[in-house]
Amino acid sequence: MASIEASPALSYLKSHREEHIRELTDFLKIPSISAISSHRSEVRLAAEWLAHRLTEAGVAKVQIDDTQGHPIVFGETITDVKKPTILVYGHYDVQPVDPLDQWINPPFSPTIRNNILYARGSSDDKGQVYMQLIAAEAWLKTTGLPVNLKFLFEGEEEIGSIHLSQYISEHQQALKADVAVISDTPMFAAGIPAICSGLRGLATFELEISGPRQDLHSGVFGGSVANPAHVLATIIAALHDDQGRVKVPGFYDGVDPLSEQERKSFASLPFDEQEFLGQTGAPRLFGEEPYTTLERVWTRPTLEVNGMWSGFTGEGRKTIIPQKATAKISCRLVPHQDPDAILDHVSQFIHDKCPDSVRLRIERGEGDSGIVMPVDHFATQAAVKAIEEVYHRPAAFIRMGGSIPVVVTFEQVLGISTVLLGFALPDENFHAPNEHFHLENFHKGSETVATLWNLLENMHA
Amino acid sequence: MASIEASPALSYLKSHREEHIRELTDFLKIPSISAISSHRSEVRLAAEWLAHRLTEAGVAKVQIDDTQGHPIVFGETITDVKKPTILVYGHYDVQPVDPLDQWINPPFSPTIRNNILYARGSSDDKGQVYMQLIAAEAWLKTTGLPVNLKFLFEGEEEIGSIHLSQYISEHQQALKADVAVISDTPMFAAGIPAICSGLRGLATFELEISGPRQDLHSGVFGGSVANPAHVLATIIAALHDDQGRVKVPGFYDGVDPLSEQERKSFASLPFDEQEFLGQTGAPRLFGEEPYTTLERVWTRPTLEVNGMWSGFTGEGRKTIIPQKATAKISCRLVPHQDPDAILDHVSQFIHDKCPDSVRLRIERGEGDSGIVMPVDHFATQAAVKAIEEVYHRPAAFIRMGGSIPVVVTFEQVLGISTVLLGFALPDENFHAPNEHFHLENFHKGSETVATLWNLLENMHA
Repeated sequence: MASIEASPALSYLKSHREEHIRELTDFLKIPSISAISSHRSEVRLAAEWLAHRLTEAGVAKVQIDDTQGHPIVFGETITDVKKPTILVYGHYDVQPVDPLDQWINPPFSPTIRNNILYARGSSDDKGQVYMQLIAAEAWLKTTGLPVNLKFLFEGEEEIGSIHLSQYISEHQQALKADVAVISDTPMFAAGIPAICSGLRGLATFELEISGPRQDLHSGVFGGSVANPAHVLATIIAALHDDQGRVKVPGFYDGVDPLSEQERKSFASLPFDEQEFLGQTGAPRLFGEEPYTTLERVWTRPTLEVNGMWSGFTGEGRKTIIPQKATAKISCRLVPHQDPDAILDHVSQFIHDKCPDSVRLRIERGEGDSGIVMPVDHFATQAAVKAIEEVYHRPAAFIRMGGSIPVVVTFEQVLGISTVLLGFALPDENFHAPNEHFHLENFHKGSETVATLWNLLENMHA
Repeated sequence: MASIEASPALSYLKSHREEHIRELTDFLKIPSISAISSHRSEVRLAAEWLAHRLTEAGVAKVQIDDTQGHPIVFGETITDVKKPTILVYGHYDVQPVDPLDQWINPPFSPTIRNNILYARGSSDDKGQVYMQLIAAEAWLKTTGLPVNLKFLFEGEEEIGSIHLSQYISEHQQALKADVAVISDTPMFAAGIPAICSGLRGLATFELEISGPRQDLHSGVFGGSVANPAHVLATIIAALHDDQGRVKVPGFYDGVDPLSEQERKSFASLPFDEQEFLGQTGAPRLFGEEPYTTLERVWTRPTLEVNGMWSGFTGEGRKTIIPQKATAKISCRLVPHQDPDAILDHVSQFIHDKCPDSVRLRIERGEGDSGIVMPVDHFATQAAVKAIEEVYHRPAAFIRMGGSIPVVVTFEQVLGISTVLLGFALPDENFHAPNEHFHLENFHKGSETVATLWNLLENMHA
């Protein structure tokens, strides 16, 4: 099959930049927070916006498929059944926005400062979803798509993709493709685009320690009953040693030791510890010995308290023994760690540590496995080339500490690999106040993806 | 001076019961929560209600004195300068009401069930303040007061009586009295009225551990920086051993060992561990060895987390490393423990335990000393007799785990002792949802106080 040049599509993207930013802004104004049930209708609104926009772009078949949770937007354009078919995945839901008072502009009032677009979802992942969309549109409105595209956009990624696996299982035929492409990962750093070849998995649970029937006056009862906040603190304190290593027996079962080659490869990246520290704002870096910072965040499993609360948290003082104390905890897992087994180990450890002076409840959340992707796959190599054409430099191969559970599902259910080609920067505050997206990478990213569609046709041929 | 019988006053109280309950209900409807600044005007409203009611009762001089915080209500009736003068103290402010969903009736919609009045402030302390008021009225409306009375009602007791010490220092002449009487303590148990002869003090502080500049994505940064929630948990866990004994060096300095006589006296009280446990709703009692439950809550200092919070506490999950973690902590102190020294010891201990991977902030709150009252004081003996006349049984001498800081101020600034004669029951949920007051004790309590005024005149003569 003859190659077509990417230039008509790239010209289209370059001449529509203002319009695209204006439209992305509209998309970002919709507060599609999947975790908060009162935002249900706004999540749906974002799905409808996306479906409408896919149709406008020229995608032949577009539908909103209801699930028992938030809907899935599916789109399909089959140019030629003999051409490769790419499954594009993204998510249009976003994280909650608290603490709200730390945002410079309100999270759903997108604002551009210094060619950077600030809004919840700008980089994770609405901005990158929209990038995929306009990369397709650029072909559809010019010389036609060089490949077949299927779009799968979900609204539950930030709450564990609750209904996605079932949907994929039930729509295997409709979703049949040669490879998946996802833009939901960061570049290595500013100016260094990257392909992500490994993801950590996730296992979450909520831990509740309760004691008295209700809050008790600490003067009347203090000293006579166990304080649930103390017990929770003692359990949390027991989960790590003072180097941050998880003390739960079995937690590191199955974790591959790092090869010398991998350590060298990571060490060769232009990673600046001081700059990374600066991104965090923490007094110093801290973590498991003898690993480097990149090894810690890319290849080591972790266990983190994401939130905890107990008793009186308002203004002033209230001298009580709290009725209960609760923590939300999540483990980042590496490949070959089984999320269920991890939760078993952690639960057992906590049960063993918990005294009988309180009551213990552990509520298990969803678990996702970690994964490592093949680097020599034809689509990965096409992505390497697309990056070189647009950014004029070689792609970095990175791993990622976060998890994208759908990658595991694509492999297990559809039997396809995924290329993780994202254009966010690591310090763009995903999940935090003042999330943002550098518009330079929004533009170059959409050009890279448009180029990738073209290269995929050729390389597969 | 000739004795007058208490009967006219007691008759007055008995014939006005319905009216008094109706009026108390009006008082309890005012949400005078001193800790929450948006309730400022309601706190003032409660002060105005009280001042108006004192005037109605026939108290000669009534005034609302502004402070830099909530106002103080002062009242005075001098019958005869040669008669003893009693300073009556109480507080018209109340605790916050959360968790609101655990209240059966709303906290400021007083409701009577089973001859028990449910409302925030019913027993702590508006119900008992009003009891003092009608005990005076009962004399003023009949044969006249047998003693001189001064009333000092503050609106900041639940937030540490911030401006009270200064007020007392500045009004020493106006507050001059022979003894103080306070009704803000519990009876020993249903049917067993008590005089409290010892109070624990209080030292409070807020502990904040902060790390990153803002919440961080736990996938991107997890494993590379210290999690403030983990550090807070580790520090809290280090504060106690597994028997609940405080591990801070110097914490028990100055604590008097219990004498054999005291242990025997406490042990002779009809204290039912199972009933006490039932009041708490905890799985079992728990505390410092080798002390009994009564010894623990009456005579041993404690350190309790009253509240703590960190990171994401909403619905769903948010996989972050929290920016900070905070705990509100208070210590109950026994006599001869210096609150300032205790906070010094605890701060030093926490500083020593806190790693340099996070930032530490300790904000010290107010401190109050513990106190033990003389049992052979003429007013204490009058209270013993008043209890016997109304309840037809001997008073129990108890200590209390809670603190009433004004008792220390009265001793230090005015040079007078205090009789703690309260009529709440220990399980009436002060500081908790469904606070209540048994109306039987409201009535008998007001009769006891009215009787006390009469006996004080005689005994002093």
